Amino acid sequence: MPSTDRVKQILSHYASENPGTLTNLYRLLNTGTLAGTGKLVILPVDQGFEHGPARSFAPNPEGYDPDYHFQLAIDSGCNAYAAPLGPLEAGAAKFAGQIPLLLKVNNSDSLAKVDAPCSAITSSVEDALRLGCVGIGYTIYPGSGARNRQFEDLRELTLEAKRKGLVVVVWSYARGAGISKEGETAMDVIAYSAHIAAQLGAHIIKVKPPTAHLEQGEAKKAYEKAGIKIDTLADRARHVVQSCFAGKRIVIFSGGEAKGTDAVLDEVRELAKGGGFGSIMGRNAFQRSRPDALKLLADVMAIYKSALRQPRLQRQRGQKAVSTRW
Amino acid sequence: MPSTDRVKQILSHYASENPGTLTNLYRLLNTGTLAGTGKLVILPVDQGFEHGPARSFAPNPEGYDPDYHFQLAIDSGCNAYAAPLGPLEAGAAKFAGQIPLLLKVNNSDSLAKVDAPCSAITSSVEDALRLGCVGIGYTIYPGSGARNRQFEDLRELTLEAKRKGLVVVVWSYARGAGISKEGETAMDVIAYSAHIAAQLGAHIIKVKPPTAHLEQGEAKKAYEKAGIKIDTLADRARHVVQSCFAGKRIVIFSGGEAKGTDAVLDEVRELAKGGGFGSIMGRNAFQRSRPDALKLLADVMAIYKSALRQPRLQRQRGQKAVSTRW
Amino acid sequence: MPSTDRVKQILSHYASENPGTLTNLYRLLNTGTLAGTGKLVILPVDQGFEHGPARSFAPNPEGYDPDYHFQLAIDSGCNAYAAPLGPLEAGAAKFAGQIPLLLKVNNSDSLAKVDAPCSAITSSVEDALRLGCVGIGYTIYPGSGARNRQFEDLRELTLEAKRKGLVVVVWSYARGAGISKEGETAMDVIAYSAHIAAQLGAHIIKVKPPTAHLEQGEAKKAYEKAGIKIDTLADRARHVVQSCFAGKRIVIFSGGEAKGTDAVLDEVRELAKGGGFGSIMGRNAFQRSRPDALKLLADVMAIYKSALRQPRLQRQRGQKAVSTRW
Amino acid sequence: MPSTDRVKQILSHYASENPGTLTNLYRLLNTGTLAGTGKLVILPVDQGFEHGPARSFAPNPEGYDPDYHFQLAIDSGCNAYAAPLGPLEAGAAKFAGQIPLLLKVNNSDSLAKVDAPCSAITSSVEDALRLGCVGIGYTIYPGSGARNRQFEDLRELTLEAKRKGLVVVVWSYARGAGISKEGETAMDVIAYSAHIAAQLGAHIIKVKPPTAHLEQGEAKKAYEKAGIKIDTLADRARHVVQSCFAGKRIVIFSGGEAKGTDAVLDEVRELAKGGGFGSIMGRNAFQRSRPDALKLLADVMAIYKSALRQPRLQRQRGQKAVSTRW
Amino acid sequence: MPSTDRVKQILSHYASENPGTLTNLYRLLNTGTLAGTGKLVILPVDQGFEHGPARSFAPNPEGYDPDYHFQLAIDSGCNAYAAPLGPLEAGAAKFAGQIPLLLKVNNSDSLAKVDAPCSAITSSVEDALRLGCVGIGYTIYPGSGARNRQFEDLRELTLEAKRKGLVVVVWSYARGAGISKEGETAMDVIAYSAHIAAQLGAHIIKVKPPTAHLEQGEAKKAYEKAGIKIDTLADRARHVVQSCFAGKRIVIFSGGEAKGTDAVLDEVRELAKGGGFGSIMGRNAFQRSRPDALKLLADVMAIYKSALRQPRLQRQRGQKAVSTRW
Repeated sequence: MPSTDRVKQILSHYASENPGTLTNLYRLLNTGTLAGTGKLVILPVDQGFEHGPARSFAPNPEGYDPDYHFQLAIDSGCNAYAAPLGPLEAGAAKFAGQIPLLLKVNNSDSLAKVDAPCSAITSSVEDALRLGCVGIGYTIYPGSGARNRQFEDLRELTLEAKRKGLVVVVWSYARGAGISKEGETAMDVIAYSAHIAAQLGAHIIKVKPPTAHLEQGEAKKAYEKAGIKIDTLADRARHVVQSCFAGKRIVIFSGGEAKGTDAVLDEVRELAKGGGFGSIMGRNAFQRSRPDALKLLADVMAIYKSALRQPRLQRQRGQKAVSTRW
Repeated sequence: MPSTDRVKQILSHYASENPGTLTNLYRLLNTGTLAGTGKLVILPVDQGFEHGPARSFAPNPEGYDPDYHFQLAIDSGCNAYAAPLGPLEAGAAKFAGQIPLLLKVNNSDSLAKVDAPCSAITSSVEDALRLGCVGIGYTIYPGSGARNRQFEDLRELTLEAKRKGLVVVVWSYARGAGISKEGETAMDVIAYSAHIAAQLGAHIIKVKPPTAHLEQGEAKKAYEKAGIKIDTLADRARHVVQSCFAGKRIVIFSGGEAKGTDAVLDEVRELAKGGGFGSIMGRNAFQRSRPDALKLLADVMAIYKSALRQPRLQRQRGQKAVSTRW
Repeated sequence: MPSTDRVKQILSHYASENPGTLTNLYRLLNTGTLAGTGKLVILPVDQGFEHGPARSFAPNPEGYDPDYHFQLAIDSGCNAYAAPLGPLEAGAAKFAGQIPLLLKVNNSDSLAKVDAPCSAITSSVEDALRLGCVGIGYTIYPGSGARNRQFEDLRELTLEAKRKGLVVVVWSYARGAGISKEGETAMDVIAYSAHIAAQLGAHIIKVKPPTAHLEQGEAKKAYEKAGIKIDTLADRARHVVQSCFAGKRIVIFSGGEAKGTDAVLDEVRELAKGGGFGSIMGRNAFQRSRPDALKLLADVMAIYKSALRQPRLQRQRGQKAVSTRW
Repeated sequence: MPSTDRVKQILSHYASENPGTLTNLYRLLNTGTLAGTGKLVILPVDQGFEHGPARSFAPNPEGYDPDYHFQLAIDSGCNAYAAPLGPLEAGAAKFAGQIPLLLKVNNSDSLAKVDAPCSAITSSVEDALRLGCVGIGYTIYPGSGARNRQFEDLRELTLEAKRKGLVVVVWSYARGAGISKEGETAMDVIAYSAHIAAQLGAHIIKVKPPTAHLEQGEAKKAYEKAGIKIDTLADRARHVVQSCFAGKRIVIFSGGEAKGTDAVLDEVRELAKGGGFGSIMGRNAFQRSRPDALKLLADVMAIYKSALRQPRLQRQRGQKAVSTRW
Repeated sequence: MPSTDRVKQILSHYASENPGTLTNLYRLLNTGTLAGTGKLVILPVDQGFEHGPARSFAPNPEGYDPDYHFQLAIDSGCNAYAAPLGPLEAGAAKFAGQIPLLLKVNNSDSLAKVDAPCSAITSSVEDALRLGCVGIGYTIYPGSGARNRQFEDLRELTLEAKRKGLVVVVWSYARGAGISKEGETAMDVIAYSAHIAAQLGAHIIKVKPPTAHLEQGEAKKAYEKAGIKIDTLADRARHVVQSCFAGKRIVIFSGGEAKGTDAVLDEVRELAKGGGFGSIMGRNAFQRSRPDALKLLADVMAIYKSALRQPRLQRQRGQKAVSTRW
């Protein structure tokens, strides 16, 4: 498939990267149902590591088998499949080339009782190359006590990944003593977390959908003074995208805990309306039965596609500074 | 001996590995009494490091001599013998080629008073090659404070071992502030620990037989909601195997503390019934007299063999999603 | 696009390679007009280095611009575009991801007066990664005085390329004091040259179409004794494919010097009939005007496609030992 | 299978090597029909590289497929299969573990017109590890102009191979300006060539069966003065074995060009009688039909086995100094 | 055994070397019958490589077995045993620590027809370390066309050997177009060859006993003008020692071809009288029967010992400048 204008435009925002990284970014953007649209839906399956196998796969036991997720990502038309080392090794030879892979190179588990989350680095750029991945994924916890070590580890992985032509995806979740539970998804905190990932050189940024809560006093003043619109999730998504270099970095949103289909689709509708680049949808996909998962993912992709048909309108309503850019 | 269908099937689950690793995996699976069955019994002797010589070898003083264990593993028809650097060096030349060796590359002792267990890395992949080992063994303590350093050290050892054609065996024992003593062998915790080893890229996973206890609140809900059968040890073993990529990773069970012969065999019977790939049996073997140890190991192997004769029946009784896979 | 049975079959012949290499092989085989058929047409443009710019590009001056060749490869539906470092750097960012790239890592020029051809290594595996290539290309001159150095350089490049998940394509052209001009394309010499590339670990082998001449005395006896059919080019292509591990290595044919359209298509028809995996067509493509080149390449691809519709018939006519394998 | 006294004795001659190398030597000696006897029959297939595909495989076209040779080596009960990189890669994953592999790391072809043969190094110790080989094979041409470079390249490969636990097999063929065609298989030249391989640290040495010709003047005097028996091939084989550290290095004989079955068996009978450790039989095996090859190899192995039943008698007839040693 | 004044004095001449090298030099000087005297007799067995096995070992067939030479060196009270890689590997484990070993790291053979001798480097400093050698031995051919490459290879080996605490022994034999056959053992040529070895950093230098011939015109003038005494072999040996840093480098003499016992002892008597540090005696030792060899070596050692009892007298007769130094 030839490149589209939108994909060319997105790639132009990463012109400092070498052609290897651009090539892998192109592969991500030109695979599956949303190929060429500039929108992405990624299937991530690291919940086995993070929450344990039963909490992850018992609702749909086919998911115990890593092959299941490769096949689900392929059949549903996802742009990529993201997972830790073990599951990728389990299927990478069998499904070689059929779906772009992202190696999740750090992971945390919920067996340890810890004050602050801190992922372990569990695989490497060399693993990503030998497994044929288009990029690596890495989680940071801005605000947490261990953030600096995380940023520094990421710095080394990023430097190597970019030299070898890989894409760097950063999961950014604020945590820590200075942030309330509610604050973890606050508008200002999510925007700030996403921005830190962009500052660290991430090509693709993944955050949770933000609420209308504003956590930090100084930030709250700034939001109010500038009259930033954060009433609807679409408004908030738009602001997150703006916070990632005015839409020049791909930002996608996680679906969070498994929930009802309507709730998922409503959320996606808002994210798409706000100019979100897409969704990374794990539990809401693989914890459903395969037919339900395929249906849901198809509906999600349809929403992102339909959002493209009315861009002019959307932009007229959006903030000018942003609308002219993506 | 030519390859069997079952061994071919198991190797196919490791298709992303190079032929060197497949060759060593084949050697493990095609040695001893259980050669070709896809089942394994391994003799591990790292207790001298972990508990001191008297606690380990005084019950059967022949065990002070490393040669004794090589010979016991060979004569009993084990698939492999696993030990730290020193004991392997003591006998590797004399017994070269007679039994697959696994170099236990990290160890912890019980002289130091520590809050959380943390093994030291005591040998290397290069040692494994010069000693003629088929693979390395490594212990992780998921849940412990030092787990991340362990995972990260394992990541580097695994990458090198796989590049050089070795097998990676991971001993996975949950520990730590967030886990009660009873919880260390809880169903959910054992399944989770085994799953983490699989996620980290282990080829073979060793855990303790799980009890019916459920430790973590969120996990308990998941087990109950999904109606996961955990009443008998066979049920629980089946769930552990399922938790290791739906049976696509080899998972074996330790015998734990020395105990009566009937107790050992009853436990093995259940593990075999539940589809466990085998046992790794240290103290229950080498702390018995040589004749008793040979008899016990022969009985254990006979149980795993007889379990193979009725697979169809077993599978019909097992959970459907799982039974069709291994 | 999902994998086809034929692509799966081809990949199965490379099962010793890591998933990274399989992934890039898949990309090559699943791009362009011939995607999924197991057939390939590749556009190579290294003639500027080999013969100088005027001899290469004056017939169609658009070819002075490296972008022209990227676009031609994309628009014509080629599987890949192959070129030395400079031209790939010139367009790799602009066309990132739109066409699989092969970095030709050694090249020879015709400024130097040399008795025996010996290419210089002009780029590296690291270059291939940063430019987003699916593999590297390397020319050997079996029979030449410098062949050993070439084989030894290739050995190191191959080891590194395979570790990092790249495909290795070997151009194999016999030359040297012991080979007559006519012998360079002799049946036995071409088959032997292709076989040497396979022996050296090449994934894809490129040779010239062989003539019915037999060059070496000992070989001639062997051909006559075994009654190897070499009357038609189809026969000869079939024998070259057989000589590359009974069809288990991809072998493609170069078009050689620019010639008339009918001559090109007649040749391709025979190569396709003989089971050739495809063509690598440089001067015959880029020295024609763009419309003519597009037409020619489309016709070539159509021939390879139509050859697939009658495989059973072809095989019945082929030599039994071979026909059952590919 | 437990070790036999003979295998233990042989391994004792390599006591300076690390257990890794001893383990791989043990694997070689404990595989196939001759397992445990201290005798070996190895299937080598590097003729495709050396003489071209048609001369090698046209007599039995199944041999074009690398899988054929793996299967032949396994089914015939050979101790090992030796081949260059490409063919080993073609089958190493599929046949992983079923037969010890030797990677032939240098090769020469017969396309080049050369005064003195000089193999190119075509693969590495790292390749041997990733493919699961028990060792590497290397050809030297003592007497040739390029011998020193060969010895020096071998020195580095040997050092690395031994550090990583691999076996080193050296093919030793005298050639060069100072040696007549007849001299290449002369008694003194073969013994000297074998001895040079032993001096260079080879574990296993392969030479051609010697004739009764004596090539070098000084050597002739020494043979005559000492009354070394060289009348029968058995006498000559015994002297070659003696020349390899009095039987403390494994020396095996090549079958040479394809010939009649009786000729092959007569030769093997003499080699066995003279205490040869075995045969490496390529063309005489794979150029026959599979049933004929299986029959021939079985007969060859039977001869080596039967030679073991009457060792006392043989030794009484042999030279005293030697007879007490092997 | 505590160090003697003479050994301390000798070691003081190597004070720039690290203690590791001094330790190994001490071992050489404090082993065997001549321990502590500052005199050395070394058994070298590289003739198998240089002249072939029959010419070397047929006169005394026990010598085919490398163990024989280890035992002979030990039982005869030699200071060291020197040999190439293969023979040292054959016995180094069995005889570990019983006799200082010197690894002969380059060797030449007499199968090749060559204009100028040029040894191949056949082992390495790493080999010397793993085999427990006290040092390495290396042959140079000053005057030959390949001398510079030899000196440069030696430079690298020497640098590494000294860094790792080994002793460097240099065999120095002049050869080449500018030197007549008679000149190879000429007084001036031997002295010059020994001096070059000293210049290159050798710790121990081995040359042939010089004749009274003077080869080079300019040298002849210098000898005559200075009135250097070269009438007796003792005179000439004294001059060679003087030429090696006035006796501050250990210089030993080879016995050359096998010859009659009286001839050997007469030669040694002169060498000892002239202050030679000792003999390196190969064929004259191992080509005799074991009892004869033991007797000869004992006699040789007795001569060196008795020479020590009358040093004052000798020195009065010698040149003053030298006599005060050793």
